[in-house]
Amino acid sequence: MERKEISKSVLKRLPIYLSYLKSLPQGSAEYISATALANALGMGEVQVRKDLAMVSDGGRPKVGYRRESLMDDISQFLGYDNTTDAILVGAGKLGQALLGYSGFEEYGLNILAGFDIQPTIQKTEDGKPIFPMSELENFCKMNKVLMGIITVPAQYAQQVCDQLIACGIKAVWTFAPVHLDVPENILVQNENMATSLALLSMHLQAQMKERK
Amino acid sequence: MERKEISKSVLKRLPIYLSYLKSLPQGSAEYISATALANALGMGEVQVRKDLAMVSDGGRPKVGYRRESLMDDISQFLGYDNTTDAILVGAGKLGQALLGYSGFEEYGLNILAGFDIQPTIQKTEDGKPIFPMSELENFCKMNKVLMGIITVPAQYAQQVCDQLIACGIKAVWTFAPVHLDVPENILVQNENMATSLALLSMHLQAQMKERK
Repeated sequence: MERKEISKSVLKRLPIYLSYLKSLPQGSAEYISATALANALGMGEVQVRKDLAMVSDGGRPKVGYRRESLMDDISQFLGYDNTTDAILVGAGKLGQALLGYSGFEEYGLNILAGFDIQPTIQKTEDGKPIFPMSELENFCKMNKVLMGIITVPAQYAQQVCDQLIACGIKAVWTFAPVHLDVPENILVQNENMATSLALLSMHLQAQMKERK
Repeated sequence: MERKEISKSVLKRLPIYLSYLKSLPQGSAEYISATALANALGMGEVQVRKDLAMVSDGGRPKVGYRRESLMDDISQFLGYDNTTDAILVGAGKLGQALLGYSGFEEYGLNILAGFDIQPTIQKTEDGKPIFPMSELENFCKMNKVLMGIITVPAQYAQQVCDQLIACGIKAVWTFAPVHLDVPENILVQNENMATSLALLSMHLQAQMKERK
């Protein structure tokens, strides 16, 4: 179906619907309505109806959507169907954990290899190769890699980001707690765990003080 | 020093300063100025100066901050010094990866144990225990746990969140792609990797289309 402009908030809800639909046991009803979905998830019916209409044209009045088709439509819309090959730079603790995390496959992400300025190991436990940075450009171009994951310390992130872009990367997923400057055609998504943890920790400290 | 109200954007920059200061080699100059820090990180001097003044009163005109003290002040401010004990619910692939990730120690986070409705293993490779959900309440109360990490599928997250709050949890770090309703005194931080991946994937799809 024709792709429409879509807001970030819709994009946040779509994975929720998909996750719920996937969780329904085998042998559940073939069809599901926006109303049933809204009720199950405690969300507004109108919103759910609009969201689904954006990604699927399979809805039938009174009956709803065929569950299987709806899952396919959402997956396809979110790009989970197209497997995206990615490489990761910074094979420290976090980098290795991400390299070894097979759950990304569900979202169509396939991390081909890790790169590090000084690899301490040649392979992760799961057999993902870790190469020295000198092989980055060649590898990215040979494998036409378009997504790069950055798990280096903050102060090296910009430099690594620039290198990735020079290697043809168009989408950057970074775990370094720092703003990255990129050209307009490159998308950066920042996963800032250090900030999350600081916020949580500060909240707990404030709570403790109140109790005293 | 007296804790002032602090904005989220300052809180995002502080881990960057800390990470940079930590990265300086042994034997670097004892003092560092806000100007030097700003230049090294490509950030505005006035901003860096203001940020540092918020978290440390050790700055001296012309000389700057003693590096060691500044690191201590930032760490303390961010709460990385107070070790926070946490438990994690949902010991699937992501949960196990987080349980095994030792890098959180740097941010003062100590994950004591994982819980799962149906544990498939009793311990992670690194020896972190995984208990059935029936032991959650007892464990949290015995160990006075205040932080909970949620790595269950989206449709179970609210229910798990409610259980955590009933067990005395005050801060929730969730990786489930769903909004959680909580009382006012509870802080929820959402780490939404599914949305990040969807955004990155959609960006790549759009880029491919443009090229054609």
